[in-house]
Order: sequence, then structure tokens, then C-alpha cells
Amino acid sequence: MSPKYKLTYFNGKGIGESLRWLLAYSGEEFEDIRFTIEEWPSIKPTIPYGKLPVLDIDGKKASQSVALARYLGKQAGLGGKDLWEDLQIDIIVDTIGDFRNELKSLKLRQDKDEKVKAEKIEKFAKEIIPFYMNKLDAIVKENHGYVANGKLSWGDIYLVSMVDFVSTFIARDLLTPYSNLAALQKKITSIPKIKAWIDKRPDSEF
Amino acid sequence: MSPKYKLTYFNGKGIGESLRWLLAYSGEEFEDIRFTIEEWPSIKPTIPYGKLPVLDIDGKKASQSVALARYLGKQAGLGGKDLWEDLQIDIIVDTIGDFRNELKSLKLRQDKDEKVKAEKIEKFAKEIIPFYMNKLDAIVKENHGYVANGKLSWGDIYLVSMVDFVSTFIARDLLTPYSNLAALQKKITSIPKIKAWIDKRPDSEF
Repeated sequence: MSPKYKLTYFNGKGIGESLRWLLAYSGEEFEDIRFTIEEWPSIKPTIPYGKLPVLDIDGKKASQSVALARYLGKQAGLGGKDLWEDLQIDIIVDTIGDFRNELKSLKLRQDKDEKVKAEKIEKFAKEIIPFYMNKLDAIVKENHGYVANGKLSWGDIYLVSMVDFVSTFIARDLLTPYSNLAALQKKITSIPKIKAWIDKRPDSEF
Repeated sequence: MSPKYKLTYFNGKGIGESLRWLLAYSGEEFEDIRFTIEEWPSIKPTIPYGKLPVLDIDGKKASQSVALARYLGKQAGLGGKDLWEDLQIDIIVDTIGDFRNELKSLKLRQDKDEKVKAEKIEKFAKEIIPFYMNKLDAIVKENHGYVANGKLSWGDIYLVSMVDFVSTFIARDLLTPYSNLAALQKKITSIPKIKAWIDKRPDSEF
């Protein structure tokens, strides 16, 4: 019997969206529990480590979005064929993590001043986005259209879902100048089960 | 034949030390290349992604310390027996990553003013260290003296080497109040191959 999944996260894509894509890809039904940012302070103390997302698998709670994406991805047959191939996927996923940490360090949510916020986004778009997207685009080119090992892995789904989140959050197109990444995005978002999820998911601001 | 390893990192423990411990544990010889912080700006452009550590495995360069620790750890037989056990290890390792990001966000190296630096460390020691160490101590208790699955894994070596780094960097004892973590530290640093590495490694400031 398929395990019972319950995903708890904010009402947004963020770092939880990759788990929704991987569950959708696997054909797993899951309960999609969403909180608003306003509700969070009162819920935080009830969450292990006080951090979202949390995935409940048959009643056992697990946290840490990247660890969970690896788990769901490998369970769906989207891991490498050996430790070396897994390493290649993990390197890219942790590089995307560095990119996300750069965004996080801007603390955009705390900015009350819209001008300050717009300036930070402008700097991020000019310096950080090209640095990472150039490298990732070259890697996807080298790997024949995928992030690693010349074949589809959970790393591809992770990357495209993260770009989807960041694009929404900062209201910028990230990929147009990067043809290999743009082609990968099209490929992933055209996978029928992922497309079906994107079509039916609730709208969100990030 | 055993692969040829070459580790490039700063002359410090930092996030590179876990890889040295795992290589030592595996009985692998490795070239231990160290740069000073002062040398770094001139070397940075020659390094993929401009980030250390880099592990050269038979001439192939790989980055990302956590991805590499997982690779070396699993190669040494220190992974879980299945995806669920691997997930438990990964959750702890990523939680330690969150702890390390909290430290990183203080940007202590940029502080010219010793008083400001001391205040930041004081706040970190009062708020962040107990939050994480309490949780990790409870997990180690639950898991019969290890971070996951009731047995030795690369997560234990990762945790203890990271505590070793942070203790040196901020000149604070982290573990005395946490008996389960202190016992784990003693267990890991008593493993003969790891003890031999600690005894012979160069002194460093972080």
C-alpha cells in the first residue's frame, strides 16, 4: 500500500514546492496543508525545529526540504546509478542551495521600504542570478540537457521548481538568456503529472 | 587501486575538516592542500564556483562539502541501510547546516571591532547554541548514542567535526552541558584512525 503523505508548508512555492512536484511526479496523493505567513508565529512552536516544510509519512514527521527531496526523488527512481552519480546530483542541488541562501540573506520579507527592496532585487538580478545561471546553464549543456549524468534526476525537478519559486518571489524572468536552462524548464514542466500539478495548484505570491 | 585524493581548503577546520576525518576514517591517503585567508582572493578565480573545499578524485574536481561528506561516508560503509535510514542521517546533517548558517550570518571575519565581535558571539552562545545542542542531544539520546538509526554513520563524524570547528572558531566549549553529545564526541574522536589524524593535523585558528 502506498504511504500516506501530508505536507505542511506556507501558502507558497518556496522550498516546499519541489516536494509537491516530486510527490506529483511519483503519482502519490498528498494532503497539502498551507499556512499564511501571518499564522506562522502561533504554529511555529508546534513544529519540530520550528521549520517548514514538514512531511508526514504514515504518521512519522520529517523535516529538511533537501533531505526530503532526495528521499522522494530516489524513491521515484530519480537517483543516480551509483555513489558517483549521486554525488553529481548532490553537488548541483547544494549549489542551488547556495543560490537560495544568497536570496535569503537579502531578508526581503523584512523590508518595509519598497525602494530598498527594489534596489536589493536589482542588485541580485545583476550580480547573483547571472553568476549561478551561467554556471548551471553550462552544466546542463555538458550533461546533454540535464543537471547531471546525462539523464533525468531529482536534481532537474529540484532546479526547475526552485527557479519557479524565485521567479514568482522576485517577479523576474530568470531563464530567458539561458537557453539550456530554459529548455530544461520546458521539459520538466511538460511532464504530464507535473504539468497537471502546476495547472491545479493554488495561486500564491511566492 | 585506491583513488588518488587531493583536498584543497583553507588552513583551518571549517567545513573542510569533516572530509579530512572521513578520508582518515577510510584509511585513504590524501594530499592536504591549505591556503591562508590572505591568499584566497588570488586563488578564488581558479576554483570552480569560487568555493572551497574542492576534492580532487583521480583528477576529477568536485565541490560542495556536504555532498562530498555523503559520498565519502557512504563509500566507507557509513550510510543507512535503505532510503529511510539515509533520510534520518540527511535530516541531521542539514540541521547542522542550519546551525552553521546561523554562525555564517554573523559575518565574524568582517568585524574589525573586537567588542562587536564578542557581543555577537555572546548572543550566539546564549541563543543559538542551546537551541540546536538541546535538540541534537535529545536526538542522540533517542538514537542510542548516535545521530541516527542507533548506529555509527557519516552523520556522527560530520556533527563532531563541525562542533570541533565551531568550538575552535569562537573559542567556546559547546558540549559540556550536553552529556549525550559529549559522549558521542568522545566516541568519534577515540576511533583510532580519526584520533591519529587529530594528533598529526596542523594547528589552525578556526
